[in-house]
Amino acid sequence: MTDLRKTVETFWATAEARDWGAFEETLAEDIVYTLPQTRERISGRERFVRFNREYPGDWHLRVERIVAEADQVVTWVHFTVGEEEMYGIGFFTGDESGRISAFTDFWPEPYEPPAGREHLVERY
Amino acid sequence: MTDLRKTVETFWATAEARDWGAFEETLAEDIVYTLPQTRERISGRERFVRFNREYPGDWHLRVERIVAEADQVVTWVHFTVGEEEMYGIGFFTGDESGRISAFTDFWPEPYEPPAGREHLVERY
Repeated sequence: MTDLRKTVETFWATAEARDWGAFEETLAEDIVYTLPQTRERISGRERFVRFNREYPGDWHLRVERIVAEADQVVTWVHFTVGEEEMYGIGFFTGDESGRISAFTDFWPEPYEPPAGREHLVERY
Repeated sequence: MTDLRKTVETFWATAEARDWGAFEETLAEDIVYTLPQTRERISGRERFVRFNREYPGDWHLRVERIVAEADQVVTWVHFTVGEEEMYGIGFFTGDESGRISAFTDFWPEPYEPPAGREHLVERY
C-alpha cells in the first residue's frame, strides 16, 4: 500500500517552498485538476505545474486538516495572499504508484447568512 | 474503535428520509455545527436538529464522495432544491461513543474564472 497521505503532505510543502522539481514528483503524468465552481479543468503534469508556478501573488499556505484513506485524501488548506485569506478544500486520488492522479479543488467564499435562522445560530 | 463513517452515512440517509428520530441518534448532545463562510455556529443537538427540520425547500441529497478515518470523516454531498443544484462539503469529528461531535460545513458557489489562465485550462 502506497502512502498517498505522505505524497499530499509533500505536495503542499513543496508548493509552499516553490520547489517545483519536488512538487512535480508528487504528480502522475496524466493528472487531472478540476475546479467545479468555474467548470475548469487542467490536464497533464506539465500544465498543472505551470498553473501553480504562474499563479499570481505571494501566496502562502498552511494545512488546517487532512483526512486520508489509502488511495484518497482530503485537505482543508488556509491560504493568505497579502491581507486576503481564503480556504481551499481539495479531494485527491492516487494512482498505483502513489502519485496524485486527480485533484478536485473547491474555494468556498464568504457570504451573508440567509434570513430565518437567527433564533438558532450565533455569529463568531 | 467506533465506526464514524457508518454514523455519517446514517446521518445523511436519515436527513434525506426526514427521519429526525434516527438522525438525532447520530449526534452527540453537545454537537457544534460551524459554517465558516457566514461565521455562524449552532451549538447543541436540539438546535441542530431543528435547523435541519426547519430548513426551507424540498431539498434532496446524494453523497458523492466520502473519505474516512476512525474519528474524522469528510463528505462531498450533492444537493438539489427544485431546479437548483449545489454542493456541500462537510468535515465531521466523532466522540468516543461514535457520535458526531463537530461538523464544519462549506458551501462552494459557482464563480467566473479569473483571467490569465485560459492557455492552461479547458471549460467543461
